[in-house]
Amino acid sequence: MIIGKVIGSVVSTRKNENLVGSKFMIVEPVEGDAKKIIAVDNIGAGIGEYVLVALGSAARIGCGKETSPIDAAIVGIIDDGANYIK
Amino acid sequence: MIIGKVIGSVVSTRKNENLVGSKFMIVEPVEGDAKKIIAVDNIGAGIGEYVLVALGSAARIGCGKETSPIDAAIVGIIDDGANYIK
Amino acid sequence: MIIGKVIGSVVSTRKNENLVGSKFMIVEPVEGDAKKIIAVDNIGAGIGEYVLVALGSAARIGCGKETSPIDAAIVGIIDDGANYIK
Amino acid sequence: MIIGKVIGSVVSTRKNENLVGSKFMIVEPVEGDAKKIIAVDNIGAGIGEYVLVALGSAARIGCGKETSPIDAAIVGIIDDGANYIK
Amino acid sequence: MIIGKVIGSVVSTRKNENLVGSKFMIVEPVEGDAKKIIAVDNIGAGIGEYVLVALGSAARIGCGKETSPIDAAIVGIIDDGANYIK
Repeated sequence: MIIGKVIGSVVSTRKNENLVGSKFMIVEPVEGDAKKIIAVDNIGAGIGEYVLVALGSAARIGCGKETSPIDAAIVGIIDDGANYIK
Repeated sequence: MIIGKVIGSVVSTRKNENLVGSKFMIVEPVEGDAKKIIAVDNIGAGIGEYVLVALGSAARIGCGKETSPIDAAIVGIIDDGANYIK
Repeated sequence: MIIGKVIGSVVSTRKNENLVGSKFMIVEPVEGDAKKIIAVDNIGAGIGEYVLVALGSAARIGCGKETSPIDAAIVGIIDDGANYIK
Repeated sequence: MIIGKVIGSVVSTRKNENLVGSKFMIVEPVEGDAKKIIAVDNIGAGIGEYVLVALGSAARIGCGKETSPIDAAIVGIIDDGANYIK
Repeated sequence: MIIGKVIGSVVSTRKNENLVGSKFMIVEPVEGDAKKIIAVDNIGAGIGEYVLVALGSAARIGCGKETSPIDAAIVGIIDDGANYIK
């Protein structure tokens, strides 16, 4: 998993039917080149929070969305995230 | 998922039989080094639109193409995509 | 998927038994840093042709090779590939 | 797999229910650009140890956590890790 | 798949039980930034040999190790590897 900061969300009205009801958050990884990713939120993460993001098949299967086209999911909120990044 | 802009399409006449009928769009990611990817369109995205692209097994399984050699699929169109990129 | 140019092939006599009969082509991606990959050919691609390459589980499952250790496969030949790259 | 050094851990109280009981370690790869990853520990690795990390579906399925959103797992501790890195 | 040169091996005494009996080789890819990977050997590759490495789920499933935490496997030895790299 990677750690990132939730910095916003995106809205998609026209989308795959298996994505209806999913919330798409923009996550900026705290490591590396900071290429932002779009992750489905499973936890209720808010903007500004530091989160654990699972990538790949783990995002689908680990979140009970086996048949959804999801390759990234927020699966945890880091306690004391602001300290982590220092 | 990543967000990209649809900038064109490619045609492949000689191809794997499980790809017959698929539309291959050229998508330029808005983040990072802009390495273009070829994604199958499931939504009816047009050139110039900003789209959500699912990568890996999510592209196959999440789009009902379990047995097709697809590793990238357009699964949503971003509302107000031009603003997103600013 | 990515687009690449077939630039050669490799021969491996001692190999996993599930790879016997597979043809290994060297493909140079047209995008990015041009790190070459070895893809199994399912189409009959020739050297110099521009091809669609599927990566990951799509290469195995999408080509009817579920139990072969294949993570990259040529799944289409691009019509008019020379123009694409310009 | 990759080799990395365990440099700390993160705590996430609010998380996916399939992650309850998992220990999240911060691992710094010894190769490349040193982008840190968060790996679930299956072995009892301590801070400062050099470990083998499995990535992708191997982390879930190879550790008996098929339905957890885990994409990285510590699956071995390198004997004589300090020498490896020299 | 990628091509790499076997440059050594690592020993891990404390490891996931599904890895017992596996041989971990250090492989240096011949392409790109040369970030070394640890691959399980299925072929009997020796140090100095050029090998085909399968990555991701192909490494597990293609080598009959469906339930092992393996994400990289040596699946072939390149004939005339020294010439390949020139």
